[in-house]
Amino acid sequence: MKAPRIPEATVARLSLYSRFLENLNQKGIGSVSSGEIAEGLSINPAQVRKDLAYFGDFGTRGVGYIVKDLLSRTLDILGLDQKWPLILVGAGALGYAICGYQGFNKRGFSIAAVFDNNPVKIGKRIGRVEILPMDKMPEIIKSRHVRIGIIAVSADAAQEVVDQMVENGLEGVLNFTPVNLVIPDGVEVINNDLSVGLESLTFKLSQKEF
Amino acid sequence: MKAPRIPEATVARLSLYSRFLENLNQKGIGSVSSGEIAEGLSINPAQVRKDLAYFGDFGTRGVGYIVKDLLSRTLDILGLDQKWPLILVGAGALGYAICGYQGFNKRGFSIAAVFDNNPVKIGKRIGRVEILPMDKMPEIIKSRHVRIGIIAVSADAAQEVVDQMVENGLEGVLNFTPVNLVIPDGVEVINNDLSVGLESLTFKLSQKEF
Repeated sequence: MKAPRIPEATVARLSLYSRFLENLNQKGIGSVSSGEIAEGLSINPAQVRKDLAYFGDFGTRGVGYIVKDLLSRTLDILGLDQKWPLILVGAGALGYAICGYQGFNKRGFSIAAVFDNNPVKIGKRIGRVEILPMDKMPEIIKSRHVRIGIIAVSADAAQEVVDQMVENGLEGVLNFTPVNLVIPDGVEVINNDLSVGLESLTFKLSQKEF
Repeated sequence: MKAPRIPEATVARLSLYSRFLENLNQKGIGSVSSGEIAEGLSINPAQVRKDLAYFGDFGTRGVGYIVKDLLSRTLDILGLDQKWPLILVGAGALGYAICGYQGFNKRGFSIAAVFDNNPVKIGKRIGRVEILPMDKMPEIIKSRHVRIGIIAVSADAAQEVVDQMVENGLEGVLNFTPVNLVIPDGVEVINNDLSVGLESLTFKLSQKEF
């Protein structure tokens, strides 16, 4: 079943709902209301109901949602009913942070390989993952069936890296640089510039002053 | 002037517009159309026009926007007409990555101090910033007029850290952990879980398969 066109902000919230439900499920909680989800995540209850309605209504008045069912539905929609091997380019501090990130494994993500062009770094390991030279990228993408790459290089190298990723068939890119990458149609990019979140905060704090 | 209530996604895009304009301004480009902004950032042109309309219409038909004016307006709205000293808690790989992030300085952000509870790390430096023990937090927040804190600790320490930040008067928190923090009214939290962006990608790639 093809879902209707869903706004990006709703998809991001779906990730949050999904994690919240995972948490409840681990605690053995069987049902939950949209109000409880809203409160647990500090999101407007009307927004939660609107978001969940995109994915078909599973709630029952007076009972709410069956946690297991809604969790499994969110995982399906997010494409997390399968494992996603990833490649990461850039073995700097951010690359180390991403490799060590605790939230990945639980959601089915794993870093298949890290690439860098610095000979000093090549051959070393970040955790269990080896740092490989850039020219090994095609081989790894093919043998490990990788579809998504993460860019954690310096800003001036970002476009060159994404070009190489696209050339080797990657379909999705998570970009941690502040660069607006040029990519062909059919390749998806999500930008995760670390300072955009800060600017949402300065916006809110400045509004408070009026 | 108090701006109308603006959706969070629009504020995030405003950051992108602002950076794009900064880039044009540096190149000495004097005017830009909403279509050019849309194309440069791969955003739907109707969305760009809608977003900019929130902030008052500065465009002139056939001429577009004066880059300098629109840039300065975006910076004002985002609260970036002033400097923002920040504190960061967590001197792990992510803390190093955040401290070394190239995009901060240009936007008026600076890390005033990094805190950690690991005695091995205390006293060391990340770049020019010293790693301080947690009990120095009140002093630094006061003396450096800090309003925003960044949390880059492990998930299990996140709530304790945010409690301490709030107790010491911080008004905004950028949370890099996957934890949904409990905070009092009046304190703003922006969550920047590294894997939410990945799940937006797996969502899109899964949709393609249908």
